Amino acid sequence: MSVTRADVQAAAARIGPLARRTPVVVLDGDRVGLPHDVALKLEGMQHSGSFKVRGAFNTLLSAAVPPAGVIAASGGNHGAAVAYAASAIGVRAEIFVPATAPAAKQERIRRYGAQVTAVGATYAEAFAASVEQGNRTGALRVHAYDQPEVVAGQGTVAAELAQQCPDLDTVLVAVGGGGLIAGCAAWYTDSLAVVAVEPEAAPTLHAARRAGEPVDVEVGGIAADALGARRLGTIAHEVTSRYVDESVLVPDDAIRHAQRVLWEELRVLAEPGGATALAALLCGAYVAPRGSTVGALVCGANLDPASWSVLPETGV
Amino acid sequence: MSVTRADVQAAAARIGPLARRTPVVVLDGDRVGLPHDVALKLEGMQHSGSFKVRGAFNTLLSAAVPPAGVIAASGGNHGAAVAYAASAIGVRAEIFVPATAPAAKQERIRRYGAQVTAVGATYAEAFAASVEQGNRTGALRVHAYDQPEVVAGQGTVAAELAQQCPDLDTVLVAVGGGGLIAGCAAWYTDSLAVVAVEPEAAPTLHAARRAGEPVDVEVGGIAADALGARRLGTIAHEVTSRYVDESVLVPDDAIRHAQRVLWEELRVLAEPGGATALAALLCGAYVAPRGSTVGALVCGANLDPASWSVLPETGV
Repeated sequence: MSVTRADVQAAAARIGPLARRTPVVVLDGDRVGLPHDVALKLEGMQHSGSFKVRGAFNTLLSAAVPPAGVIAASGGNHGAAVAYAASAIGVRAEIFVPATAPAAKQERIRRYGAQVTAVGATYAEAFAASVEQGNRTGALRVHAYDQPEVVAGQGTVAAELAQQCPDLDTVLVAVGGGGLIAGCAAWYTDSLAVVAVEPEAAPTLHAARRAGEPVDVEVGGIAADALGARRLGTIAHEVTSRYVDESVLVPDDAIRHAQRVLWEELRVLAEPGGATALAALLCGAYVAPRGSTVGALVCGANLDPASWSVLPETGV
Repeated sequence: MSVTRADVQAAAARIGPLARRTPVVVLDGDRVGLPHDVALKLEGMQHSGSFKVRGAFNTLLSAAVPPAGVIAASGGNHGAAVAYAASAIGVRAEIFVPATAPAAKQERIRRYGAQVTAVGATYAEAFAASVEQGNRTGALRVHAYDQPEVVAGQGTVAAELAQQCPDLDTVLVAVGGGGLIAGCAAWYTDSLAVVAVEPEAAPTLHAARRAGEPVDVEVGGIAADALGARRLGTIAHEVTSRYVDESVLVPDDAIRHAQRVLWEELRVLAEPGGATALAALLCGAYVAPRGSTVGALVCGANLDPASWSVLPETGV
């Protein structure tokens, strides 16, 4: 089971204008101590606040959605994205969230018109319940990352970026379950260097590469709500093994710093997972070869601006 | 004293890459109850967080900056912009702020490397002190809006937008002292409809049109720190009298709503003045003719994200 560039192209045609063409802005390297600029794809401006809606649309449009609608498990970006996409297409959505998910996140999913079912204390329990319910009702399942249509949909970010910035030779992508980087790597193949960035506290791809196969890891840290999948997807493992050469880890402090730089320099408010790819450049976990033209995905912006005050005030 | 399209073109060539090319994103009309989409120029992502740095750069590059450097009065966006531009070019800057200006804003100006001098209780007192000091030291003065180089520099926003969105036929622009709209109108002349938008609580352009000349008005409301000039600039009056057909007012509630829509739909955090142009569309103060292709400037983003929680929670 894999995903190819042709799958991503087909997804782009299928999704069309349902996903927003998100803008790119250039961060000046000399403002942040880098020897090169960074083209940032602001995917947090996507509908529902993250790239996840691309995979959701592609999945919903790849099959005849049954009368029971679609079903997914996630109290975070994936849940909001599936709810948004279902609403835009006009089908029912039921989203299973752990009962521990913050009320504000449940409310956001509900506002997009989905039925929210709170079950269990962990994501795993909510996921198991969603599978059971899906089997009962026949609803179309949308996995958070390990499903070909989802991966191909996420890859449309890369297809769009390639149009906007045809000269990049390096693109950094944050990794949780691996749907986004798999889609991007499937699109770019060997045409440029796709660099995987993960929090030290949630190293699923890193661990999979070391083990030679996806393995369970302990996950935590400030980006866990977005990048905290416990195990890399099988599709992501297959695609990234082939096309992703570098995998780097960043500490939570570097992620917070990147969030702060995004605000100070660009007035972009990104969630921790959204700032993780840039963090690798700023903290030196990844150093681009001399003369590189570098891009990075800012992949999500679902945070409460009011929580910003908890960030440290140390300057850029 | 006026400003022409040629002045704006010259400013664009002069400023070059010192100003950031800010991105445009399209807000879907059907998400916000409008019969048309809105192309939003995200000028809050500009260096120092607002368009003001364009006019500052153009002024600093139009003259030989004396050893005493540059001088300006403003505790807000203009002060930060002049400080940023001076630092980027490598000249001294002294910024006069009213002693009542929030410490955080003074600190931002200081972080850009400027000397901050706090004088008096009002902007008028700080301004008078800056003029006196400028006469003493010979420093180059940069007015917040009523100076040809400043107006021409602000107009480069329009020149850039015209490249990015050549098909617009209507552009909405917020007005304080009028530097931004004058620059934009000088660029666009009659080639499209430039619409002036002001808070009901700070109607300088509206009052000038009614009186036939700039007149002092009472200013207040939530956008006053950015749009609270008490009197329209003479250049702005001259240029907008010729090229701006519509002037509309919006209540503070509409500005808050537009801020909320920008966050909910696009994860863009704009200050009140930055959301004012869009507010006119959302509240119906301006209704574009059927079939229009509409743009609006989001001209500033200098706010404290943590203050966001004070916005009402009523949904979009």
